Amino acid sequence: MSTDALRRLFHPGAMAIVGASDRVTWSKTAFANWQAYSGGRPVYLVNPRHAEVHGERAHRSLADIGEPVDLAFIMTGTETVTAVAREAADAGVSGLMVLSSGFRETGTRGAGLEQELAELAADRGLTLLGPNTIGFINASVPVAAAATPINEPLAPGPVAILLESGGLAGSVLNMAQARAIGLSHVIAVGNQAAVRTADVLEFLVRDEATRCIALFLESVREPERLRAVAAQALAAGKAIVALKAGRSAAGGRTALAHTGAVADDAEVTRAALASLGIVVVNSLEDLLTTAGLLGAQPARLGRRIAVVAASGGACELIADRAADLGLELPAFPSPTADSLRRDLPGFSHVANPLDVTGYVVVDPLLQIRALERITAHATGVFDQIIFQTLAPKAHHGGQQYTMDRYQRLAGVIGASPVPVLVQVASGFDLTGFPTVLSQQCGLHMLDGIEHGMTALGHAVWWHETRDWIGSRPAGAPLTAAPAAVPSPGASGVWAERQARALLAAHGVPLTPARYVADSGEAVRAAADLGGPVVLKLAADDLAHKSDVGGVVLDLRTADEVRAAAARLLRLSVEQGLGEGCLVVSPMRAGGVELLVSVRQDPTWGPMLAVGLGGIWVEVYRDIGLAPLPVQAADVDRLLGALRAAPLLTGARGRAAVSRAAAGSAIAAIAAVAERLGDAFDTIEINPLWVSADRAEVLDALVVWRTPDPPDRE
Amino acid sequence: MSTDALRRLFHPGAMAIVGASDRVTWSKTAFANWQAYSGGRPVYLVNPRHAEVHGERAHRSLADIGEPVDLAFIMTGTETVTAVAREAADAGVSGLMVLSSGFRETGTRGAGLEQELAELAADRGLTLLGPNTIGFINASVPVAAAATPINEPLAPGPVAILLESGGLAGSVLNMAQARAIGLSHVIAVGNQAAVRTADVLEFLVRDEATRCIALFLESVREPERLRAVAAQALAAGKAIVALKAGRSAAGGRTALAHTGAVADDAEVTRAALASLGIVVVNSLEDLLTTAGLLGAQPARLGRRIAVVAASGGACELIADRAADLGLELPAFPSPTADSLRRDLPGFSHVANPLDVTGYVVVDPLLQIRALERITAHATGVFDQIIFQTLAPKAHHGGQQYTMDRYQRLAGVIGASPVPVLVQVASGFDLTGFPTVLSQQCGLHMLDGIEHGMTALGHAVWWHETRDWIGSRPAGAPLTAAPAAVPSPGASGVWAERQARALLAAHGVPLTPARYVADSGEAVRAAADLGGPVVLKLAADDLAHKSDVGGVVLDLRTADEVRAAAARLLRLSVEQGLGEGCLVVSPMRAGGVELLVSVRQDPTWGPMLAVGLGGIWVEVYRDIGLAPLPVQAADVDRLLGALRAAPLLTGARGRAAVSRAAAGSAIAAIAAVAERLGDAFDTIEINPLWVSADRAEVLDALVVWRTPDPPDRE
Repeated sequence: MSTDALRRLFHPGAMAIVGASDRVTWSKTAFANWQAYSGGRPVYLVNPRHAEVHGERAHRSLADIGEPVDLAFIMTGTETVTAVAREAADAGVSGLMVLSSGFRETGTRGAGLEQELAELAADRGLTLLGPNTIGFINASVPVAAAATPINEPLAPGPVAILLESGGLAGSVLNMAQARAIGLSHVIAVGNQAAVRTADVLEFLVRDEATRCIALFLESVREPERLRAVAAQALAAGKAIVALKAGRSAAGGRTALAHTGAVADDAEVTRAALASLGIVVVNSLEDLLTTAGLLGAQPARLGRRIAVVAASGGACELIADRAADLGLELPAFPSPTADSLRRDLPGFSHVANPLDVTGYVVVDPLLQIRALERITAHATGVFDQIIFQTLAPKAHHGGQQYTMDRYQRLAGVIGASPVPVLVQVASGFDLTGFPTVLSQQCGLHMLDGIEHGMTALGHAVWWHETRDWIGSRPAGAPLTAAPAAVPSPGASGVWAERQARALLAAHGVPLTPARYVADSGEAVRAAADLGGPVVLKLAADDLAHKSDVGGVVLDLRTADEVRAAAARLLRLSVEQGLGEGCLVVSPMRAGGVELLVSVRQDPTWGPMLAVGLGGIWVEVYRDIGLAPLPVQAADVDRLLGALRAAPLLTGARGRAAVSRAAAGSAIAAIAAVAERLGDAFDTIEINPLWVSADRAEVLDALVVWRTPDPPDRE
Repeated sequence: MSTDALRRLFHPGAMAIVGASDRVTWSKTAFANWQAYSGGRPVYLVNPRHAEVHGERAHRSLADIGEPVDLAFIMTGTETVTAVAREAADAGVSGLMVLSSGFRETGTRGAGLEQELAELAADRGLTLLGPNTIGFINASVPVAAAATPINEPLAPGPVAILLESGGLAGSVLNMAQARAIGLSHVIAVGNQAAVRTADVLEFLVRDEATRCIALFLESVREPERLRAVAAQALAAGKAIVALKAGRSAAGGRTALAHTGAVADDAEVTRAALASLGIVVVNSLEDLLTTAGLLGAQPARLGRRIAVVAASGGACELIADRAADLGLELPAFPSPTADSLRRDLPGFSHVANPLDVTGYVVVDPLLQIRALERITAHATGVFDQIIFQTLAPKAHHGGQQYTMDRYQRLAGVIGASPVPVLVQVASGFDLTGFPTVLSQQCGLHMLDGIEHGMTALGHAVWWHETRDWIGSRPAGAPLTAAPAAVPSPGASGVWAERQARALLAAHGVPLTPARYVADSGEAVRAAADLGGPVVLKLAADDLAHKSDVGGVVLDLRTADEVRAAAARLLRLSVEQGLGEGCLVVSPMRAGGVELLVSVRQDPTWGPMLAVGLGGIWVEVYRDIGLAPLPVQAADVDRLLGALRAAPLLTGARGRAAVSRAAAGSAIAAIAAVAERLGDAFDTIEINPLWVSADRAEVLDALVVWRTPDPPDRE
């Protein structure tokens, strides 16, 4: 769907409501919204059975209107929608928006009706939003073609809201308005029969009024298009903030390899979106507060904050949240501290975060003067300053007094060399006067400490990630795309010898291994390798060899090796594994064991996962995830972001291990996956052993997409 | 401070504002609040220099008023406060509330003034709130003696707000009002020169209008009194919900034992409060929403929820939060599902959570009827039902229409056999009509999905924890209190032999150990013990023996034992540890290693900590903490609440270990700590090894409070 077509759809000169009726709340609401928020543009009502609807003349059909109509908002019965769409095309209407439900969401018959509608729209060049959509608002025109109640004032601004759930549109809109978040658009895509989420995202990235997009995602249908539009958004400096619903419904992925599912769908989605520079949040509150901040504040935000508030409790809560989020509160430079000491009452304590004390009630400009002092020497010390205050409506002295105070605040902020974020105590409804004030003073108000600080953390992440993605050499993944699968005909599960050979052929470092068939060979191999050894069964299709006792560690003498080899050979027969050969390897101890896997995700393709080996991934969910292709630096960033990262750098007297060696081995494993293309399902290294100077694969498994042919079973 | 005295303080018949002035916003606000919200009770203004203040007659002094005054609200200069207090006592005023600051919070001189004031109050029988307090509201009388702006309406209700930070009073009050939370009291304790937090808590627990207390804590000054009042609150069925600020300021505790500080102050505080049945929350939003729910809903809440909403997106978000919080969404029983299928439009999908679809706009009672269907067979299936909807102000059709709809909803809720929680989309300000509606219909509105579901999770925790605490046999800790310290004169650090002897004497299970002085003895001890052994240095004052290579594992042959013993004996001399004897123990492998410590906390006394051994506690902060005394069942509950609990029950093919054996060993360790009273600083077991059938201490350390005498160094 072209951006031009969407621009026409979302910028109609006149609208007709087809199926308008006094008995339908949707119709009443859509009509009232258009009249209130569409700047006097004409709206026509179509109802073949009534001459008057909503106190206005009703037309019998679209053809009957006799004036140009750009958009038909259809709310008739499901069965008649396609006929109405045909009438619209005949009448020269280019935009179609279908509120009616009963289509794909209801089953096969509805899906058929939806396809018929979509085909008609494509044939006749109609731009179709929905069906099953509550509509849209384009607040920068303004136009409101939506069947959900809209509070006053509808403030235009930089944030676009895009929803895959129409049922939430009303509350999300109201939440945005209550937070005085200026909006460019609110768009519900409904069933996406024609116009898809990615189309609208592309339109919004190109839209001049939009600086940030708040996205409520139900599912990712077109990952490649999302990748492309996310890159466009980063290039344009427009943040996309996403809330993905349905985490809990995901669950239940089946384990294929040693340690089971490394990550669930929600974790994969979150990592994949993050890898595209999309901010992922956990609640509607954080969606709006984060988008509001990133929309309002084009300047770069960073980790060093100064805080000025009029409450010690607020200062403590802000400091707590800053610590949670990895934000820093550097000390005030001496000139700032000196000037603050001169200005503030004797009993105040000058420190960052700064409590100017309740004396602000006696001297209402005290906090603004303190802010001015902080801005004077902020450059290079603070990335931004938080000005924490009550919401404007709570102040005494009338609106003009409050407006004057905020104008003064806006003046100080305008002159500041670093961004100043006005954070208001949460729980206030900022519709009405505070919104007007916000628009007139050009001040954004950040909603409360809890969500406001979370928004700041997300915004800093976005700036850092945008830099990170931008700083990587373009088009230089680890390897070139493969021309062909290098293991044609590979099928089933490869463990040990086959998996090792594959990895070794591609330069992945492995622990030495000798394959032996009897006890005598085992003893000779152990002597060759020197030192304590490990003995393992090496049956290709035994994924969980340790579960049946097929691994014996730390064998030191020839007798021990001989005894263990004899036992494993018997076990191999008992377990029906046939002659199954044995593997002798040097024992590796100390160091850190990592789990590395690459797994095909149905939506995102191959996903790299790294974490601690063993069962720690399962217990603590401490996993770094990224879609391929990755570069070596991406791998290092994943390792550095693990909570277990201190184990790599040497925690509490443990020796540090080589993160560089680990990163390089993992990058080599990822490169193998890239070369295999979509032939494999899972590559799992468990563990990758990392010592002070090297990393080695101790055990590996490859699951191919093609199952074993029947004759091998 | 007696509850009777506080009842008089918070229920004054008449108030005087001393230091009233037209130039002081505090004075204007306090006067306006009293007039608006104190039911016509008299208020007198005292100012020696003006005959008129706030358009009313001003008195020259308290004595000059000539009418009974119960409460003097003093806002004069710091230096004159005590003189005014004396005047108040002379004039027969019993309650004193001091807004003025400049006391203890400013340093030594202010602390002196504060003490003088407190002593005067004690001498003259005055009940003193503050200094440095913004005042209080008693909404059930009503009386508003507070210098912070109050929005209308001030709805009376079951929630008391108690703040140690006066600067937050304004925003917390407004946040409560915006959420239509009915209040019994809002009380800021200021500097607590006389009336302390625990006094007010005790008063509120006994107050008939109060069913839940929201507490903003800056520090815990009187832990024993808090313990006592928390027990009273549980007995009375009144929840205390606490937000503790200053998590980040804590930090910096010095490590004394092997693995460093097991928990920081914030973690200790959280665990200690939780052990008292106090709900600990993370934000002001959660403080109010949780207290609002627990105040409004006296019935028991549980983990099984049904949900009815008019948005698929809301259903998904609720299901996600439910999964996070360990809440369950059981399927609808067949009769419920059948009746819902009859009622709902054909395209809807009948499942829990239930989306009645946007058709609710056409049939506005659809969702209420669906609720009624769900209540019909809810007993035994659901603990409560969530009715998710827009806030009442967003509805069309006028206030009477909305009131009628909510009355009908209230009727269905009143007839329901299980509690129904009305959860409204967040971001609406519910002051005004929605608050009136809420009071008239007797309906509490839960604020949004994010904080509403968190509140439900907290409420369920509170009910479960109250039962848990109530179900333990009263007064039966693990041991009786000690008559005397059993190791008189113990000092410094005890490791190995001394620590083992202490634990063994009290019945704690230990791994066998033989103390040997040379290689020959070591070989003989290893032969006696049989199987692989471990060899360790056993110097009493070597806390971190493994850091210097003083531990050798898995020695299997006489030669290996002899060689290792020789090396350790040399190491002992090299490290300046003297002759240092060696310990030979059987090697323990497999199983799970736990860290168990008991450490004296300056506020809470001995705190038991359990977690995984090694460095996992540091990396993942997966620690169970509880103040002593503990019972065996408490220990088992701590183990069960670890994220690592699946390791104990056998995760992914690992053998399960004996949680009972672990619990009993840990309980025995805790009992040793109890018997030692306050003689020790830290007891640390690292690790406690747990196998399928037993638990054994492998290494132990006791740090005594008394340092070693100089002659030992």
